[in-house]
Amino acid sequence: MSGEPRIGIVGATGAVGTVTLGLLSQRGYTNVRAFASSRSAGGSVSFGDRELQVEEATPDALAAGELDIVLFSVGTAASRELVPHAVRGGAIAVDKSSAYRLEPGIPLVVPEVNGARALENDGIVANPNCCTIPLTCVLKPLHDVAGLVNVRVSTYQSVSGAGARRMDALRAEDPAEHNLAMDWTWEGDETDEESKLRAETRKIMELPELPLSATTVRVPVLVGHAEAVWIELEQPLSADEATAILRDAPSVSVVEVPTPKDAAQTDQVLVGRIRPDRASEHGLVLFLACDNLNKGAALNAIQIAELILERQRVPA
Amino acid sequence: MSGEPRIGIVGATGAVGTVTLGLLSQRGYTNVRAFASSRSAGGSVSFGDRELQVEEATPDALAAGELDIVLFSVGTAASRELVPHAVRGGAIAVDKSSAYRLEPGIPLVVPEVNGARALENDGIVANPNCCTIPLTCVLKPLHDVAGLVNVRVSTYQSVSGAGARRMDALRAEDPAEHNLAMDWTWEGDETDEESKLRAETRKIMELPELPLSATTVRVPVLVGHAEAVWIELEQPLSADEATAILRDAPSVSVVEVPTPKDAAQTDQVLVGRIRPDRASEHGLVLFLACDNLNKGAALNAIQIAELILERQRVPA
Repeated sequence: MSGEPRIGIVGATGAVGTVTLGLLSQRGYTNVRAFASSRSAGGSVSFGDRELQVEEATPDALAAGELDIVLFSVGTAASRELVPHAVRGGAIAVDKSSAYRLEPGIPLVVPEVNGARALENDGIVANPNCCTIPLTCVLKPLHDVAGLVNVRVSTYQSVSGAGARRMDALRAEDPAEHNLAMDWTWEGDETDEESKLRAETRKIMELPELPLSATTVRVPVLVGHAEAVWIELEQPLSADEATAILRDAPSVSVVEVPTPKDAAQTDQVLVGRIRPDRASEHGLVLFLACDNLNKGAALNAIQIAELILERQRVPA
Repeated sequence: MSGEPRIGIVGATGAVGTVTLGLLSQRGYTNVRAFASSRSAGGSVSFGDRELQVEEATPDALAAGELDIVLFSVGTAASRELVPHAVRGGAIAVDKSSAYRLEPGIPLVVPEVNGARALENDGIVANPNCCTIPLTCVLKPLHDVAGLVNVRVSTYQSVSGAGARRMDALRAEDPAEHNLAMDWTWEGDETDEESKLRAETRKIMELPELPLSATTVRVPVLVGHAEAVWIELEQPLSADEATAILRDAPSVSVVEVPTPKDAAQTDQVLVGRIRPDRASEHGLVLFLACDNLNKGAALNAIQIAELILERQRVPA
């Protein structure tokens, strides 16, 4: 590849697509095309100080060989249908749905944790769940020093994780109706969000047996996911040592009390409340918050794309 | 005591006081007086289909010997000041603040868990924190069968726990401002809410060494607290066995997904999501929700009062 990379965004009118466009513009990309379903195609979306026409995401348009990277922010069924056409056209697809995350041979990447895996792709790289990304950013540096034995996590997930329409619904809702929800698909005694968090964390951290127990909960917050986390470690690690390790960790900021609002519209995983777990010998407790649309989705995918673009540029 | 018990409510104009009046009226009590600070005294409060004048809660009024039971729903400082006067006047004080909860010799009571302790009072019985009450209602029957080793809990606490003004603030808030908070007092690396939850659970369950690790979080919900709970047990206990035990537990209802909204304005602790903890051998995970103003505060205090009134009535 030479010159400016040609980037396509599929799902450009959605909550994550909108954030993706904003981040690409900020980062100076100019050769960007917006795609959406036939329902949204024909309109336009903002891209920096100009407008992009929204093209229909047809198999032919994606396979035409005119794109280097395609960032998919659509549902799992749409990804399964469209991603192969982008790959056929010679692009690398970075897919934010759960369609390919657990497929053997397809890298599932958090650049700060297993970035090198992004280069081992056959055309598709999967972007993890919006809770898995911040969790692994925090777990990896602690694991490297003290060895993870197990993980327990309860989530506080904002409605933007369920899409732009759920955000509108919360904006219009009588506060007396605000509630917690577990609005996921059931898989036996867990939600699919809970089993994803375990399976994806295992794959990214290359710890295929890691015991991880999650309870995933939707809260009436617009943007920003938080997680209460307990870990048990092989080696003793004090709260001060863990804090020092996390202060040096990429994309992680240590704060007193991480909140979704402080994390919103930042690129960082906020982590705090780092303290010994009074219920175990080598245990720690912590709390984290992250913008689920940004580092939890759009930014992580762009970082993956940049790892690939950088490598492709070297031999040019 | 003979005839109708004379009941005083101090803090009758607050969020919990209002619920207390409603419950007392529903339960058929008629000899009820409402007290509040000088700021709120002089007005009136609804009591069934009539209005009660709000009297000022002065030491003399409370010590005048005209009350059998006084239910205190005021702050810790006000309780410390006023409770002794009610006791001096011959009443039994049931105090909902944290003033007396951990004082040796003062019973801290959840009727379903340690009701007999209510009778061992010297004039004061303390009512636990709104998260401790539902937690112990669920832990006690499981402990009796399988022995608790440790407890981890993260909370989802509604703003009504912080009082009526915080409810008004949430009603008026732009949803874009909704956030999580840890709006408690700090005690070292914990909030006082977290250390209360541990200390009170230990006292009520008479397990003074029980390891309990809590992360307490305020969520933008008006009424109803929820808790994600992990327990480790001495004996193996399947999710089905635990479910059967909890179905038989007093004041507990097993449901699929407990939510604050379903719990609100009910007398029950809703519990569900009961499943094995994939992070430990004899562990269980569950989720609970409870109306923090009702069973989490007002109702529990009335149940304590009724245990005492019942006993006093026997010899009459």
